Amino acid sequence: MRNLRLKLKFVGTKFHGWQIQENAKSVQGEIQKAVDRIFGDNSPVYGCSRTDAGVHANEYYCNFHTNKTIPCGKTVDAVNANIDDDISVISCDEVDADFHSRYDCKSKEYIYLIRNSSVRDPFLNGRVWLYKYKLDEELMNKAAINFIGKYDFASFCSTGSSVVDTVRTVTDAKVERDGDILKFTVSADGFLYNMVRIMTGTLVNVSENKIDPDDIKKIILSKDRSLAGITAPPQGLYLNRVLYEK
Amino acid sequence: MRNLRLKLKFVGTKFHGWQIQENAKSVQGEIQKAVDRIFGDNSPVYGCSRTDAGVHANEYYCNFHTNKTIPCGKTVDAVNANIDDDISVISCDEVDADFHSRYDCKSKEYIYLIRNSSVRDPFLNGRVWLYKYKLDEELMNKAAINFIGKYDFASFCSTGSSVVDTVRTVTDAKVERDGDILKFTVSADGFLYNMVRIMTGTLVNVSENKIDPDDIKKIILSKDRSLAGITAPPQGLYLNRVLYEK
Repeated sequence: MRNLRLKLKFVGTKFHGWQIQENAKSVQGEIQKAVDRIFGDNSPVYGCSRTDAGVHANEYYCNFHTNKTIPCGKTVDAVNANIDDDISVISCDEVDADFHSRYDCKSKEYIYLIRNSSVRDPFLNGRVWLYKYKLDEELMNKAAINFIGKYDFASFCSTGSSVVDTVRTVTDAKVERDGDILKFTVSADGFLYNMVRIMTGTLVNVSENKIDPDDIKKIILSKDRSLAGITAPPQGLYLNRVLYEK
Repeated sequence: MRNLRLKLKFVGTKFHGWQIQENAKSVQGEIQKAVDRIFGDNSPVYGCSRTDAGVHANEYYCNFHTNKTIPCGKTVDAVNANIDDDISVISCDEVDADFHSRYDCKSKEYIYLIRNSSVRDPFLNGRVWLYKYKLDEELMNKAAINFIGKYDFASFCSTGSSVVDTVRTVTDAKVERDGDILKFTVSADGFLYNMVRIMTGTLVNVSENKIDPDDIKKIILSKDRSLAGITAPPQGLYLNRVLYEK
């Protein structure tokens, strides 16, 4: 059977996340419905990540198996014609039979955007966290650097998660400002439930002088969620890049 | 009476243009309702331009008179709290008693954005014209330059317009490409009904070799709408800058 990988982009606002759900619109639901209609193999669509409701993707991969010979170029057009406009298939390629979008992923990069202004930008509604008090990006960046390394990130995982192994390797973490927009970028071999949103909330708490930037390592080592900061809202979060070996 | 000028920004998608209408959401309707609620002077709100349904504004000015002493800073917050999220009041200033947002406007700049790709970008839905065949920005720019000058632009005005004087002075007109995005920028002392959208459609027709770039002047001089190109759809159009003397 052929194994087709789709590269997607989506605005998460109206979806209840990636994962298929009864009675709620999901990104996987849209893709699965389109693939079933076009290919008719009844093959499950596997996603690279379970994104939350309201979270966006500048880059997202999924894959499915098929016996049909529809070429990749036509697949892009056909799936795009059969899914909600807030999702777009950017490209399609044929991958090894055993490739899996989630298990073969080596690294992911997330960005979190904060609009640091008292006034909303209507073009960014649902696409940033609007935070009106002046944020100190240098202090936040100083704190963010402490996320880099291989650690048990249990302090940065929402309670109720069923994940057993909470060790992850963060390879990059930085905060930059471009005018009113603060961007937190973080890369890792994997992420825990709400990890980036809790990291972002913690960085904002650092700017608010509620958490000392030098205490980040202590918070990590405590493995105590209650010592980390607030969970930032979903709408500023974007899955930005997904890396595979080949 | 004080004369307050508001600087706005709005995503036009859900509005039936600037002008107040019965049974339809308009930008003016939102601002007027908020100003009436906050100031209670029953003063009309004057806009700088009648934008069409679906057209956006990166910068838009309106003004109204009031006897109340509410300061400008508070006015921004109060109006923002009372209008649809797709509009934002960026700032407020007190202007001369006889200032009028529309009549005192010296020049306006519009931009028109075309996404030149076969694949939609979901983040730009409703914010660009998606045009899939390869556009020749150099040819379009060569044609656009011919719009510059003081002319009777009747050929670039939708029929049914009640405007008598169709002479306008275009001071800038250019086409630039940034990746998949083509941007047409045009500045003038005033614009006719659908003028930028017809100019854009004409430039696309130039790229399609349906209109010769050297015929733009002839089309202008003909004062014949039927010789110009198609009317581009509203969603790519942005009022981008509005200039007053002071």
